[in-house]
Amino acid sequence: MSTDLATLVTSLAQRARAASLVLATIPRARKDDALEKLADLIDASHFELLEANQRDLLSPEAGALTAAARERLTLNESKLRHLARSVREVIALPDPVGTVLEEFTRPNGLRIRKLRVPIGVIGIIYEARPNVTVDCAILCLKSGNASILRGGKECFHTNMALGALIQQALHAAGLPADAVQLVPTTDRAALTTLLKLDTLIHCIIPRGGESLIRYVVENSTIPVIKHYTGVCFVYLDAAADAAMAEAITVNAKASRPSVCNAAEQLLVHRAAAERLLPGVARALTAQKVQLRCDAASAALLDRAGIASTPAATADYTAEFLDYIIAVRIVDSLDAAIATINRDGSSHSDAIVTADEAAARRFLAEVDSATVYWNASTRFTDGFEFGFGAEIGISTERLHARGPMGLPELCSYKYVIEGNGQVRG
Amino acid sequence: MSTDLATLVTSLAQRARAASLVLATIPRARKDDALEKLADLIDASHFELLEANQRDLLSPEAGALTAAARERLTLNESKLRHLARSVREVIALPDPVGTVLEEFTRPNGLRIRKLRVPIGVIGIIYEARPNVTVDCAILCLKSGNASILRGGKECFHTNMALGALIQQALHAAGLPADAVQLVPTTDRAALTTLLKLDTLIHCIIPRGGESLIRYVVENSTIPVIKHYTGVCFVYLDAAADAAMAEAITVNAKASRPSVCNAAEQLLVHRAAAERLLPGVARALTAQKVQLRCDAASAALLDRAGIASTPAATADYTAEFLDYIIAVRIVDSLDAAIATINRDGSSHSDAIVTADEAAARRFLAEVDSATVYWNASTRFTDGFEFGFGAEIGISTERLHARGPMGLPELCSYKYVIEGNGQVRG
Repeated sequence: MSTDLATLVTSLAQRARAASLVLATIPRARKDDALEKLADLIDASHFELLEANQRDLLSPEAGALTAAARERLTLNESKLRHLARSVREVIALPDPVGTVLEEFTRPNGLRIRKLRVPIGVIGIIYEARPNVTVDCAILCLKSGNASILRGGKECFHTNMALGALIQQALHAAGLPADAVQLVPTTDRAALTTLLKLDTLIHCIIPRGGESLIRYVVENSTIPVIKHYTGVCFVYLDAAADAAMAEAITVNAKASRPSVCNAAEQLLVHRAAAERLLPGVARALTAQKVQLRCDAASAALLDRAGIASTPAATADYTAEFLDYIIAVRIVDSLDAAIATINRDGSSHSDAIVTADEAAARRFLAEVDSATVYWNASTRFTDGFEFGFGAEIGISTERLHARGPMGLPELCSYKYVIEGNGQVRG
Repeated sequence: MSTDLATLVTSLAQRARAASLVLATIPRARKDDALEKLADLIDASHFELLEANQRDLLSPEAGALTAAARERLTLNESKLRHLARSVREVIALPDPVGTVLEEFTRPNGLRIRKLRVPIGVIGIIYEARPNVTVDCAILCLKSGNASILRGGKECFHTNMALGALIQQALHAAGLPADAVQLVPTTDRAALTTLLKLDTLIHCIIPRGGESLIRYVVENSTIPVIKHYTGVCFVYLDAAADAAMAEAITVNAKASRPSVCNAAEQLLVHRAAAERLLPGVARALTAQKVQLRCDAASAALLDRAGIASTPAATADYTAEFLDYIIAVRIVDSLDAAIATINRDGSSHSDAIVTADEAAARRFLAEVDSATVYWNASTRFTDGFEFGFGAEIGISTERLHARGPMGLPELCSYKYVIEGNGQVRG
């Protein structure tokens, strides 16, 4: 890569680091003021934003997009009003910074406090949706972090226009404009350089498809918080209530199949399969869900006069994100737990049962970020948990797991006060 | 690398993953039982362990070691008794697993609990000291994690002998022996393979020198928790008490220079330099500490008849781990904070002052894992914080920062109980 590009990206990260030190200790009111100004600027800039968006929509890159991707890229008046509203919603969220997480005094008199502080500089690498630019910038800002945003090339002009508004709002609020910066090039080499700047950038959050995330993980020396896939399971236990089994399975699969907390696979205990599966299968097919069945479930459904498709091996670990569900019959609770721990993605998994002992074992032994007893996997979401806006859902084990809101965009530090103590 | 080696390492990680699922839900008593059996086995196996250690000491690799490194590698009766005692101390620590971190009920009736759970499988990559093998294995075991240990080649036979005892203790306690495994080869290719097994291993903790850690960070697709260096600062503010300045500086630098929480640099406010520096410098030189001074501090010391060495630029960011300290005079509190945030390693930094406003600014604005007011940096340590044994001190911003004990070897999961809730 050219030296110019390396210099550009390094300078950007250095400025972000400097801004992060300012941002780390400013009071909530000043961050909220910048957010208020940004919301107002978005409201006042529909024309400029739609114009920039048009440039993206007319670009060769946009020509190659699917209809769904093009729809996600396209801004309109209604989406822009929604964007400004989402900024105002973050103003209402509490400031996570400064919370005392622990506080104690040692026998030698040292007073130790563990305080929540911002992480520092966060890099967000994402794909085409322009709202991600604003969502990430405002969550990082509210949590006292500087952010470096690198969106997809299809969305370049829209992102740069949004970035200019964000910097204008920061400046107007008396905060360093460098606290939110967009990488001003779509050159892949700039990204590769960025991912090695581990003395300046403290965390990378990729948001997008699996290949983007894999690229980031393989090229980054900066810690990455990620979520590859959501291969979520619903398990209907021997003691599942039939109506509940049907309602939860249909909701988990068909209420919004394109999201990561949607169910991709149904496991049914052999002892309850005759009783439960035909009803659940009819309810799913009524929602146009295709059933990809193992031999046992296919035979059972066939006897009940319900059509199904034979599952391929790959279907048992697939994230369909579509009106498709894999179906398997398992011999026991143990088999269900082992199957989920082997073939799932440790995201969100549910058991439907009236048997508390079975539920307790499932909740303890299924090794996932969120585990449900008699509820839909679709609840894995910052708003549904009452946490407010989220920057993503982590399937990591370190730092944040599950919905990641403002507190999860923070680190902590130990602040220790003495009166001359030395170590013996 | 050979397919055999890849197969070996992958199989080892698969068995660790299976063992981790068993370990995650067993009660404290069974883990403590295994630890008790291990302590007894160490006590009963001095002959075998010293024999294995002799094989290492006679190896060509050991011949190339420095005297200090050879001393760290060498076991004796006293070190083995200490090792067994350290195992018994971990028995006494509380089990971190299962702690309810948050608990609340949503308006729709969903009961959400955030519970502390083990991370899963932890890989520890370390260098020559054999006690690290036992320390890491027992802390991982107590926190419900399976561990894969890969020590240095100089210590291979000792480590394998300790690993055999650990597996014997696990087996005797009815736990899976695969819960603690040593990589049975010192081939670097095995390590490189291990660092890519991100579906089986959830966290890597390197313990050793900077080049080992850098190798791990650059080659791992698994999240890494690390601590590169401890470049710790003591800042003597304008309002510092002279006796306290002297006691804290000498303790921070000279009580144990080889450790990461030892001070490497002294900053002195210009307004207090005449008053403070000569006394502090005399106290340091009395401890055989070499002073590497900037021009201003050198001139001041020269006028006071105290010898010093001119500092090279590299000294201002150096981790000496020796009886050497860099000394600079700064113009202001702001300059001290900026210097530490630029040249330090975000580990442990102290201000000595009677001025509370200055101290509050230092504690808030110095961006380090632990910040001290009127106390020595040497207190950054799990035992000193009252946390018990630690697996390391993290300079990461994600997951764990500062001393990392049993709770920091854990993740969390959300356990959600409903009565049929579906998302609207």
